Amino acid sequence: MSYNSFGHLFRVTTWGESHGPALGCVVDGCPPGIRFSRADIQHELDRRKPGQNRFVTQRREPDAVQILSGVMDDPDGGEETVVTTGTPIAMMIENTDQRSKDYGKIAEQYRPGHADYTYDVKYGLRDHRGGGRSSARETAARVAAGALARKIVPGLKVRGALVAMGEKDIDRSNWDWSVVEREDNPFFTPDAASIPVFETYLDEVRKAHDSVGAIIEIVAEGVPAGLGAPVYAKLDTEIAAGLMSINAVKGVEIGEGFNAARLTGVENADEMRTGDDGRPVFLSNKAGGVLGGIATGEPIVSRFAVKPTSSILTPRRSVDRQGQEVDIVTKGRHDPCVGIRAVPIGEAMVACAIADAYLMHRGQTGRI
Amino acid sequence: MSYNSFGHLFRVTTWGESHGPALGCVVDGCPPGIRFSRADIQHELDRRKPGQNRFVTQRREPDAVQILSGVMDDPDGGEETVVTTGTPIAMMIENTDQRSKDYGKIAEQYRPGHADYTYDVKYGLRDHRGGGRSSARETAARVAAGALARKIVPGLKVRGALVAMGEKDIDRSNWDWSVVEREDNPFFTPDAASIPVFETYLDEVRKAHDSVGAIIEIVAEGVPAGLGAPVYAKLDTEIAAGLMSINAVKGVEIGEGFNAARLTGVENADEMRTGDDGRPVFLSNKAGGVLGGIATGEPIVSRFAVKPTSSILTPRRSVDRQGQEVDIVTKGRHDPCVGIRAVPIGEAMVACAIADAYLMHRGQTGRI
Amino acid sequence: MSYNSFGHLFRVTTWGESHGPALGCVVDGCPPGIRFSRADIQHELDRRKPGQNRFVTQRREPDAVQILSGVMDDPDGGEETVVTTGTPIAMMIENTDQRSKDYGKIAEQYRPGHADYTYDVKYGLRDHRGGGRSSARETAARVAAGALARKIVPGLKVRGALVAMGEKDIDRSNWDWSVVEREDNPFFTPDAASIPVFETYLDEVRKAHDSVGAIIEIVAEGVPAGLGAPVYAKLDTEIAAGLMSINAVKGVEIGEGFNAARLTGVENADEMRTGDDGRPVFLSNKAGGVLGGIATGEPIVSRFAVKPTSSILTPRRSVDRQGQEVDIVTKGRHDPCVGIRAVPIGEAMVACAIADAYLMHRGQTGRI
Amino acid sequence: MSYNSFGHLFRVTTWGESHGPALGCVVDGCPPGIRFSRADIQHELDRRKPGQNRFVTQRREPDAVQILSGVMDDPDGGEETVVTTGTPIAMMIENTDQRSKDYGKIAEQYRPGHADYTYDVKYGLRDHRGGGRSSARETAARVAAGALARKIVPGLKVRGALVAMGEKDIDRSNWDWSVVEREDNPFFTPDAASIPVFETYLDEVRKAHDSVGAIIEIVAEGVPAGLGAPVYAKLDTEIAAGLMSINAVKGVEIGEGFNAARLTGVENADEMRTGDDGRPVFLSNKAGGVLGGIATGEPIVSRFAVKPTSSILTPRRSVDRQGQEVDIVTKGRHDPCVGIRAVPIGEAMVACAIADAYLMHRGQTGRI
Repeated sequence: MSYNSFGHLFRVTTWGESHGPALGCVVDGCPPGIRFSRADIQHELDRRKPGQNRFVTQRREPDAVQILSGVMDDPDGGEETVVTTGTPIAMMIENTDQRSKDYGKIAEQYRPGHADYTYDVKYGLRDHRGGGRSSARETAARVAAGALARKIVPGLKVRGALVAMGEKDIDRSNWDWSVVEREDNPFFTPDAASIPVFETYLDEVRKAHDSVGAIIEIVAEGVPAGLGAPVYAKLDTEIAAGLMSINAVKGVEIGEGFNAARLTGVENADEMRTGDDGRPVFLSNKAGGVLGGIATGEPIVSRFAVKPTSSILTPRRSVDRQGQEVDIVTKGRHDPCVGIRAVPIGEAMVACAIADAYLMHRGQTGRI
Repeated sequence: MSYNSFGHLFRVTTWGESHGPALGCVVDGCPPGIRFSRADIQHELDRRKPGQNRFVTQRREPDAVQILSGVMDDPDGGEETVVTTGTPIAMMIENTDQRSKDYGKIAEQYRPGHADYTYDVKYGLRDHRGGGRSSARETAARVAAGALARKIVPGLKVRGALVAMGEKDIDRSNWDWSVVEREDNPFFTPDAASIPVFETYLDEVRKAHDSVGAIIEIVAEGVPAGLGAPVYAKLDTEIAAGLMSINAVKGVEIGEGFNAARLTGVENADEMRTGDDGRPVFLSNKAGGVLGGIATGEPIVSRFAVKPTSSILTPRRSVDRQGQEVDIVTKGRHDPCVGIRAVPIGEAMVACAIADAYLMHRGQTGRI
Repeated sequence: MSYNSFGHLFRVTTWGESHGPALGCVVDGCPPGIRFSRADIQHELDRRKPGQNRFVTQRREPDAVQILSGVMDDPDGGEETVVTTGTPIAMMIENTDQRSKDYGKIAEQYRPGHADYTYDVKYGLRDHRGGGRSSARETAARVAAGALARKIVPGLKVRGALVAMGEKDIDRSNWDWSVVEREDNPFFTPDAASIPVFETYLDEVRKAHDSVGAIIEIVAEGVPAGLGAPVYAKLDTEIAAGLMSINAVKGVEIGEGFNAARLTGVENADEMRTGDDGRPVFLSNKAGGVLGGIATGEPIVSRFAVKPTSSILTPRRSVDRQGQEVDIVTKGRHDPCVGIRAVPIGEAMVACAIADAYLMHRGQTGRI
Repeated sequence: MSYNSFGHLFRVTTWGESHGPALGCVVDGCPPGIRFSRADIQHELDRRKPGQNRFVTQRREPDAVQILSGVMDDPDGGEETVVTTGTPIAMMIENTDQRSKDYGKIAEQYRPGHADYTYDVKYGLRDHRGGGRSSARETAARVAAGALARKIVPGLKVRGALVAMGEKDIDRSNWDWSVVEREDNPFFTPDAASIPVFETYLDEVRKAHDSVGAIIEIVAEGVPAGLGAPVYAKLDTEIAAGLMSINAVKGVEIGEGFNAARLTGVENADEMRTGDDGRPVFLSNKAGGVLGGIATGEPIVSRFAVKPTSSILTPRRSVDRQGQEVDIVTKGRHDPCVGIRAVPIGEAMVACAIADAYLMHRGQTGRI
């Protein structure tokens, strides 16, 4: 069952609301003998953490991860390193800054673009302190799991970047991965020239009491050819499901994606030649690293679209639980572009999908 | 596990290759008491069947479905109708036109855009008679399952249409569902004016020994609000996974999809008012019928991009299993635009995802 | 979901009723490159086949298995051998001797010990031609899957024997595996001396219009130490679930089983010493080859209890669908001891559970 | 996947070792609107808690459960009550009394009857502080989940009792459920006369530096007819899997269980008549409340056998990780009969299996 679980052999179950005492995840099926430090996990959590600059919500959570099970001290390692034992790894992050009163006013109203109405219809009740499971807080647990997933496949490197914000695109000819992690880059953009453009743009958006969407690209390198499976467990299907499960995501694509529909077969073919080592090489990667659901060995390139933040200061028409018509302004601490923080979350989902495919492939074929 | 299964409570497992004796599916978890006729299933299969006109492959399969289990004669019905008993429903379609010799020449070569290379890497062997599980034949089993899925949710209507082919878009202002099923419309386009345009365009593409991609839109009406679940079993996640699992699909989107990234929060908000019956109504459907992973009651609108047919008569560079460089021309019977036949397949996947969400929702909440 | 599926990575889904056109299974996740012949499968099916002697039902089904997908001709092998390709393997057995009229009289009555009443309550309708999914026919599909499972783990040997019938036990000091398969042994007993005893006993039971139960023991040798998992996927849990899912099974035990409750810790300890090769050896196998849910490398010994055949010629009191009280005599072709034919079925379930644990272990740990 | 998860729609995932900071569970799929208090959960935990009398281990854990997610304050209820929201319910119990030094000596030795050897073989490493996931501590998480499961099915009552300890059986004619919970009854026996017998017996066993096994019976009343499914999700299969997954359990049976193999069909038939309300009634319950895998509406009766505690003070021969032969005496705090504390654990597993079957049945059939 997959209400709150993702993956098959590398199986992540997340739990927790934005306004309860804590949230977390259980990673089941992680291989034994994987070495990591709490700092590895924390590093990824810090990347998605709110409160880091003026473009993301001012809610300040230390987001300090606790590792509660599934690891032991590293017999060969330093004090900080732990080793997975093969048993489920539980990680927990306390919610220290809950301020549930912020949400008091809207407890009875359906915020447009939020899941308030659908939760009410589905469950007949709703915990109106924040967005429940639809809160972006849930994604902290994914990021923690993803940090672990990155360790499973030797040589795997999963990186993400923001490639469009609202109507502004980056200039792909400026792509430089090192820019993404620069301290003066609050946007995860790989195009240094876009930083001031996005700053100005986002300031305008915020001043207009508005918000914008974004497009994120995730590139996974070092994925062994052969991972994935032909039909419903296609590697691109699993990645698409992982990305689409992130809050506010409305579209997912692999390789050329929607543009592939515009191409001809001649244009779209990734031709092959024999490399210097006698092994096949692809001359292009329109497929985004996946053919027939199985990894080709080329980088796996996916993109996803994040809708604009629904919580805005511009009044929108809505109704309340009693059916009264109301105008809603969502105050509180909200990013004008939630897509920015989605970068490490997208990376985490791609890493989880690949780690899972790796274990599945090894299980079925023994070829790793 | 989901190598070859889709869904949770309404669980479809497909099997079969294009060049074995048969292919089929097992639908497990179908509720008891669902009435249908073999003709209901056959009708959907006939819609995706090859050999119907000059734009789809001339391979002629009767695609006659056999229902092997899970049903009994309808005590209240006519001779044709059967009733589900609640046990697994096995359906089988024989492969009557296999001609495996067609593929002999390419048994040792990796066709660009096909899964030949990745199957070899994954499994260490490959059944080169056709595309194995990557063949479009596999989708016949999905369509059979989807025909059944359509019966599960009372009032559900799932329809699809082609909205773009290569560089040609339909004119959405001409949208007329009745056009889609017209006998003189080989394209599933809802825009009558586009039929001659597509005919000319596709003839040119074929004469150029080339192929093109397509974009398909699926609209599901009558989906009860509340279906879906907050996190990894989001209704849009399940739909995205279902659509992405179709051969040659490279992108999936819900509602505004990738365009949502370009909008502001003010533009993207689906405002609400109180309807004449006192219930909330949405004034727009940018969300595509899903908020927080849960159905709003509005039509669920999804789109997917199909890449151009990889089998083309224009030579493309490749290598063979021995690492020799070769030029490949894929002869045989191939659609110049596989996206056309993807319309009923996309409908089937959306219907399956919704039927599954319906049973899951009923199970967890008892609210249906 | 597991309505009709068993296993995780080696996943068997069965379908079909006793009185439909066919029954079968889909084996998903079978590794590629496994060589077998149709005769391997047929051999196991023939072992459980009815109509072989006067102690099993006279219904005569050829039970000829068809392999519909997931295999290709063996490039290195003879004409008979096929090789798995890694895609789902569908197998089908036609029902050629249905005689559904036999059951006409009891269509409206609830046979004691049968699932007639519970199906009616559960589904609100029931296919009264035979026992539906509760028919022993379903187990043919399991046996076909089990024949394949035996091929997955190199060196695996799974054998079963009947160790008690009604009040008669075998003499375990006579245990001889070669006796089990002797042509003059219709009982799968490993004790040659018990054959005439069981013959006389079962003749008496049948003449008394009665039936008896049985206890079956399954021994799996060659199971690598390490298979299984600590908690809910314990190897003994999976075996117990597999055996308990067989029709008419009412109890399952591993190693000393229920007798372990009668022992002291001193008696029950399987002590260890170092073997000639320097590796640990167990001095006894009270645990039945499993500690903490994980295989020790010792033979895995399980037993299960089969209740007496419910269809008997002695009238039993019951009611019909209208609530009328009736006396029921179940005519037709029924084994006086269904436990006999359960031997190859039990072997199949154990083989499937071990094959699955093997793939899971390889997937998670890479240690095979 | 089910390494550490149990159930389908009501899905319990447990995590944690005996000697880490905490252990817990995530209950996914719990219906919304279920009211309970933390005291309901704590009550069940206290029933299995060690340190309560001289017959169970003197390790003293408060076992105080924390509910971390999935609930909100009860709008209609008192301060103590919470209501499930439909999202995953995480519960955590801290390990406050770890004393990992107790285990230092045996870190390198394989204790007979423990999973030390099999963990080492499986994972290549082992956390020797206690038994890892094989520790009885893991069962606290099951009991917490079971306490919640009991609330799902209206009218469900699940009770357990110890019916045999070593060679001593209770007198079933003395069965009195009220005795089980009496404060002066440390054994969960329903036979008051057996209390002094068990006390004397267990004192002797302990003085002999030995231990004994036990047989536990679980009776579930109020299970609606229709729950369960015909084949691999048989209600008795799910119960058997749940019980067999408990540490040290070596056998499971339903209704007459192994005794059914000794009966004739005439003896074993549960005959039916029409009750005063016109509905069918069973005149006996040899089936233990399940026919064809589906609940009959009669009490569901299961039993399981627990082996004697493996940790004993009598030296047993074994080997260590280096292959040296050693004699092992397991000091520390250990119950002489772990079967006693298994009673609430067995109840929990049966309650979870029934809750899951209830939701599955509602989902598939809509008949609840």
